[in-house]
Amino acid sequence: MESLTGLSFLGNSRGTATPTPFHASDPATGQPLEPDFYAASDSEIDQACTLAWQAFLDYRQCPDSKRAEFLRCIADEIDAAGEAITQRGVSETGLPAGRLTGERGRTCGQLRLFADLLEDGNWVQARIDLAQPERTPLPKSDIRCQQRPLGPVAIFGASNFPLAFSVAGGDTASALAAGCPVVVKAHEAHPGVSEIVATAIAAAVKKCGLHPGVFSMLNGSGKVVGKALVSHPAIKAVGFTGSRSGGCALMQIAANRLEPIPVYAEMSSINPVVILPGALAERATALAEGLQGSVTLGAGQFCTNPGLVFLPAGTDADQFALALAKQMQETPAAVMLTDGISQAFQSGVAKMASHPKVETLVPAAGQEPSAGSHATPAVFRTTIDDWVNSKEMVDEVFGPSTLLVTYDSREKLIDAIGSLEGQLTATLHGADDDWTDAHELVEAMELKAGRLVFNGFPTGVEVCHSMVHGGPFPATSDGRSTSVGTQAIYRFTRPVAWQDCPDALLPIALQSGNPRKIDRLET
Amino acid sequence: MESLTGLSFLGNSRGTATPTPFHASDPATGQPLEPDFYAASDSEIDQACTLAWQAFLDYRQCPDSKRAEFLRCIADEIDAAGEAITQRGVSETGLPAGRLTGERGRTCGQLRLFADLLEDGNWVQARIDLAQPERTPLPKSDIRCQQRPLGPVAIFGASNFPLAFSVAGGDTASALAAGCPVVVKAHEAHPGVSEIVATAIAAAVKKCGLHPGVFSMLNGSGKVVGKALVSHPAIKAVGFTGSRSGGCALMQIAANRLEPIPVYAEMSSINPVVILPGALAERATALAEGLQGSVTLGAGQFCTNPGLVFLPAGTDADQFALALAKQMQETPAAVMLTDGISQAFQSGVAKMASHPKVETLVPAAGQEPSAGSHATPAVFRTTIDDWVNSKEMVDEVFGPSTLLVTYDSREKLIDAIGSLEGQLTATLHGADDDWTDAHELVEAMELKAGRLVFNGFPTGVEVCHSMVHGGPFPATSDGRSTSVGTQAIYRFTRPVAWQDCPDALLPIALQSGNPRKIDRLET
Repeated sequence: MESLTGLSFLGNSRGTATPTPFHASDPATGQPLEPDFYAASDSEIDQACTLAWQAFLDYRQCPDSKRAEFLRCIADEIDAAGEAITQRGVSETGLPAGRLTGERGRTCGQLRLFADLLEDGNWVQARIDLAQPERTPLPKSDIRCQQRPLGPVAIFGASNFPLAFSVAGGDTASALAAGCPVVVKAHEAHPGVSEIVATAIAAAVKKCGLHPGVFSMLNGSGKVVGKALVSHPAIKAVGFTGSRSGGCALMQIAANRLEPIPVYAEMSSINPVVILPGALAERATALAEGLQGSVTLGAGQFCTNPGLVFLPAGTDADQFALALAKQMQETPAAVMLTDGISQAFQSGVAKMASHPKVETLVPAAGQEPSAGSHATPAVFRTTIDDWVNSKEMVDEVFGPSTLLVTYDSREKLIDAIGSLEGQLTATLHGADDDWTDAHELVEAMELKAGRLVFNGFPTGVEVCHSMVHGGPFPATSDGRSTSVGTQAIYRFTRPVAWQDCPDALLPIALQSGNPRKIDRLET
Repeated sequence: MESLTGLSFLGNSRGTATPTPFHASDPATGQPLEPDFYAASDSEIDQACTLAWQAFLDYRQCPDSKRAEFLRCIADEIDAAGEAITQRGVSETGLPAGRLTGERGRTCGQLRLFADLLEDGNWVQARIDLAQPERTPLPKSDIRCQQRPLGPVAIFGASNFPLAFSVAGGDTASALAAGCPVVVKAHEAHPGVSEIVATAIAAAVKKCGLHPGVFSMLNGSGKVVGKALVSHPAIKAVGFTGSRSGGCALMQIAANRLEPIPVYAEMSSINPVVILPGALAERATALAEGLQGSVTLGAGQFCTNPGLVFLPAGTDADQFALALAKQMQETPAAVMLTDGISQAFQSGVAKMASHPKVETLVPAAGQEPSAGSHATPAVFRTTIDDWVNSKEMVDEVFGPSTLLVTYDSREKLIDAIGSLEGQLTATLHGADDDWTDAHELVEAMELKAGRLVFNGFPTGVEVCHSMVHGGPFPATSDGRSTSVGTQAIYRFTRPVAWQDCPDALLPIALQSGNPRKIDRLET
């Protein structure tokens, strides 16, 4: 591993040491980390986007097999840099080495899964209506349709997944798979890991002989560099994982362009969990253990962190709360990703604790080391009547905190679910007897979420064909999509139809004789 | 057929005679038509949307077979009202009876095609990842995914297709098929036809025993009633066909809601046609005839009307232009849909005619009757050098007008295509010899359009599985979609995943044993 330069990646050249340096910090100690990184200048942003457009004209015509080779090559290069990534990652994020190794496996697995998808070939959704020249009153033309790439995609690295949702994360993997060059805006909290991963991608671009503009990465802030990137006319879509305010700002920029473009922003979710009476009676201790694990995983810094738990009022709920409180109290302080996230967490739990209708079971305070950004878990409790009357209680507290809400009627529970904003997930715990009258509740939950989890916990998002990591606003900006799993590719494609096109001018997937040997809907 | 009332449809009740009446006019004569129609009041808009949300909770759970029955019933009811529709339609739109009969066939065929799609069942895109409890290091959950409806949809009737893109048009058919109730904002130019069709749908709702809120129709203006409709929190998506300014206004309203929602607006397209040298040499007369037919079809009031024709400079082009001009001159004046459309057409052709670099081959003037809204075809000519230097020449002139642009190099042609905004269609005419070096041109055209037409004309949009009637902005607000054909259903759905869900709580399409007997992607 060569030493870090702090410069942006503009295709196969590098940016300059601009007058706006910044640096990463170690959240465990609060100490700054070497070297300086340099925010991309306006002309560098323009250069990256212009190169991406030029690359698009080539890259969109690459055979699926070539793009698959590229994705596999990226994964191999990242694996080869694994030790450097973990080492720098621990310093920049405070996440343990094991987590970073695991996340790297997920990231590379994701790239290889999209390579499999491309090799399989069915992803293009080929549809063919054969001509009917004899049809009356009008003959029918031969019409063939498949998915085609949108164009260069701007992708924002996320703070909480320095690998799986960052430079070579799911957005990049799915955009590159679709045939779209990417311009990444690296997250400022882990610029070193970003540079190592960008170096790996740049090496893969070179090894595969692709147009260098297929990948660029810009350093800098979202408010300046990110805004300019999303405003650039060469950019045709945006992928983002982060805060609600950040995602909504990008949505506004994209909607106000001369040519509005789609934004896929994954933003805010409190991931409600509903525990039904039978489940609570049957396995209160196991549920408390599972919830503790899910709430505190990665210091609670998961989009799918369960921040709201409905459970039936009564002695079972009291015992559950006691068991959960004990486990949370025993959970040691964990390092949070950034000072900003840590401060937002402290202010979120302080607000919750000071609410007159909220009982604090475990306060998030007192055990933190004096330096760095640490958090201890917090647990709160209220009743469903108080909860429905308080808008403040439904704000997301990003970190290891959860709010227990006791309900005393199924109707109130369903109304409470109905009052929620859109969510990434909604979870239901039941015993066998609980399911018989659960239909109405499940339907209410389905209206609010992209994924319904039964007798499990929402953290842990499987990368597979059927995953939906998305949901109605504000969970995402566009609930018609998923950012995890193979369906993520369709965020960056559009259907195109060819009418009576000579065979040689058709994309291979649509040519007569089906040379790609894929499943086609033929009529 | 009972007489028209002029009142809005609020589920199974009717609106009131509000203080804001308006009336239709016969564009052939300019004479007003009875009766008065009444713009929906704010409370009526709210009532329709609230009913639609209530209906959604039922309707989304209707089996595919029930929704199919409903769509077929609507088609039958519309067919039963066929004579009344044609009679009123001729008066309100100036379109000939034959066109209205044909458009009704298309409209009912579209409804029945979506019924077929529902009965087939594969449309839900079922994906199943089976559990792997033994997997290490972590077991894999059972995850199942399918498309589910978004919620109530606001649909705007279009002036130029009083049936196929209006009250029971493609937007309504696809939304109802997806499981979404609709609230239609009827177009003010054909309120009588709208009321007859709404009566047919309301009868079908009743016959099928559905929740009455599944369909409502509001009279009134886009600026007042349309704006309030799109702003209503119960509305979760918008379908619109109309002007660029109207579509962009709706996009802004939708983007600025507390909960932004998707807008599918089909807006502006000049549908470039490129004629290659071989084709022009081989069949100039046939091409001129075909173009004349396509440009003047329906008085040029088609979204896919070819308003821009590139052809190789030279004597062949001159002969083509002469032939086309002769045919256009011989085309009689046609009634336009509204006075507003007619005035916009006259002002568009006047602007083109006054352009110093544009030669007028056929002026659109002189033959119109004095009363009513009529248009005669217009043909203009310029060179590619003048065309690229004039932004004014690329504005859409909605009506029977086209601009011939002669090109003297392939590079200039490709650059000209590259300078265009997004289009619904792009058309290429070639002889066999033309195709060998056409790849680059076809690729340039693909970047701009939703549908590429070869050796044909863009008017005439087949309703089928592979049709794409969409395209990059400003052809539509969302190039990832089509408003015609079975893929239109996906505008109004989102994927939902169920993780480890008890079988009885799963949608039938995802249940074990595949009781719906559909194609599922199982892993």
